[in-house]
Amino acid sequence: MTRQELFEQIKKKNSYLCVGLDTDIEKIPNHLLSLPDPVFEFNKQIIDATKEFSVAYKPNIAFYESMGPKGWESLRKTLDYIPKDCFTIADAKRGDIGNTSALYARTYFQQMEFDSITVAPYMGEDSVKPFLDFPGKWVILLIHTSNPGSIDIQQLETRDGRFVYEEVIFASQRWATADRMMYVVGATKADKIGTIRALAPDHFFLVPGVGAQGGDLEAVSKAGLNAQCGLLVNSSRSIIYASTKEDFADRARQEAQSLKTQMKEYLHKFIQ
Amino acid sequence: MTRQELFEQIKKKNSYLCVGLDTDIEKIPNHLLSLPDPVFEFNKQIIDATKEFSVAYKPNIAFYESMGPKGWESLRKTLDYIPKDCFTIADAKRGDIGNTSALYARTYFQQMEFDSITVAPYMGEDSVKPFLDFPGKWVILLIHTSNPGSIDIQQLETRDGRFVYEEVIFASQRWATADRMMYVVGATKADKIGTIRALAPDHFFLVPGVGAQGGDLEAVSKAGLNAQCGLLVNSSRSIIYASTKEDFADRARQEAQSLKTQMKEYLHKFIQ
Repeated sequence: MTRQELFEQIKKKNSYLCVGLDTDIEKIPNHLLSLPDPVFEFNKQIIDATKEFSVAYKPNIAFYESMGPKGWESLRKTLDYIPKDCFTIADAKRGDIGNTSALYARTYFQQMEFDSITVAPYMGEDSVKPFLDFPGKWVILLIHTSNPGSIDIQQLETRDGRFVYEEVIFASQRWATADRMMYVVGATKADKIGTIRALAPDHFFLVPGVGAQGGDLEAVSKAGLNAQCGLLVNSSRSIIYASTKEDFADRARQEAQSLKTQMKEYLHKFIQ
Repeated sequence: MTRQELFEQIKKKNSYLCVGLDTDIEKIPNHLLSLPDPVFEFNKQIIDATKEFSVAYKPNIAFYESMGPKGWESLRKTLDYIPKDCFTIADAKRGDIGNTSALYARTYFQQMEFDSITVAPYMGEDSVKPFLDFPGKWVILLIHTSNPGSIDIQQLETRDGRFVYEEVIFASQRWATADRMMYVVGATKADKIGTIRALAPDHFFLVPGVGAQGGDLEAVSKAGLNAQCGLLVNSSRSIIYASTKEDFADRARQEAQSLKTQMKEYLHKFIQ
């Protein structure tokens, strides 16, 4: 999916919501557990309930990997079920030497046909580039994450008076343009989003941390929206576990609709 | 496996060799391809051929993941086949927010019973700590890798006149001792290994890059060995693909034996 196509979807749905499919077998409603593939069934109902309001889906691979071979089957079925007009993100945070990153890229882009993958930048250019060898696919690079440990490396100051995460932005802009690369920017400090927007005016930001992690959607939107939206705001737990009972899909729908309603307002308020 | 137990194995075998099981279905000998699980059969023969000379095995998870659900079966069978007196490393380079890292830890430490996992440090303390919640298990943290892109982030200079990789060493020493944490230190520049040894005198270093990536074993050993060895030197392609024909296991054995012979010499030369 191109940047323009993604923007078209955002305008059509009046939403920049990404639903995080962090599906934990220990948290899904009991009535699904007797089915042959409870994880897929849960995801299917979540997707059906939210697809009107969501432009992207992001399975975190850890959750599927933790279930062994059958988890990978659930992941594949989930990916195949996501409507083709939605952007798909393999939240895998991979990154290794070139030949190994190339294998990861093959796995997520060819075998599973995700639109994008999250990548950790610590190993530098040749660990990221193999993901860019697949035309039409996206790298979503970790820049500034929403967890407390983001201070340990990302916020170190360099000799040039910049933060490490800023250096990652500068370096990565030599590897790909905003048509092939997005940035993970945590939502817990909206002022950081403004700072990073100034350094990367055109890039899409994938913003986790709204909801369970405490980010503020209005502040994030005000600081982060650009002329082509430029934001995908992810919510996982607050949508998919809005209820742990039989009404989980209805409640997920309500949560997604509520976020979409706010996003519609912000799209009009901040980018017109 | 404790640090002392690992050192005992090293003394017993006179070797600090780690064999990297980066098993690519496209590179294994043709005569194995008709078997039900060619990847496991290849690994089994490599393990049998090298276990006399090797104290550790390191499957790179990308290779197994790329084969879908059956790759995970091959990985599990491989792990079960590795002799219990060998140290096992899941080369996964994971790292995510706390609840997700905890899932990765469960996958590799409980479900698969690896002794250790490689972890990327970019997300900081709370992305690493969940791996340390499993008693007796190890984190092997990326510090300074052997690929060209290591200059992009790892070798940035901070305001305090240190490199980022040095800051990672200092930070990580607050998270765990040398009894629970090792460091990945690339072999292509042996002088870096000496620098890092000075900062972390007791830690084991996992050193990739000897062999196909061009590192020099004697220089690495001279710079890196400490009183309890402190090194695991990994070789993948130069051992497992020493031959691509029916004699692959014999050739792998010869390569491993040759490295062990050198290591025996260095153990006596540099640490007595």
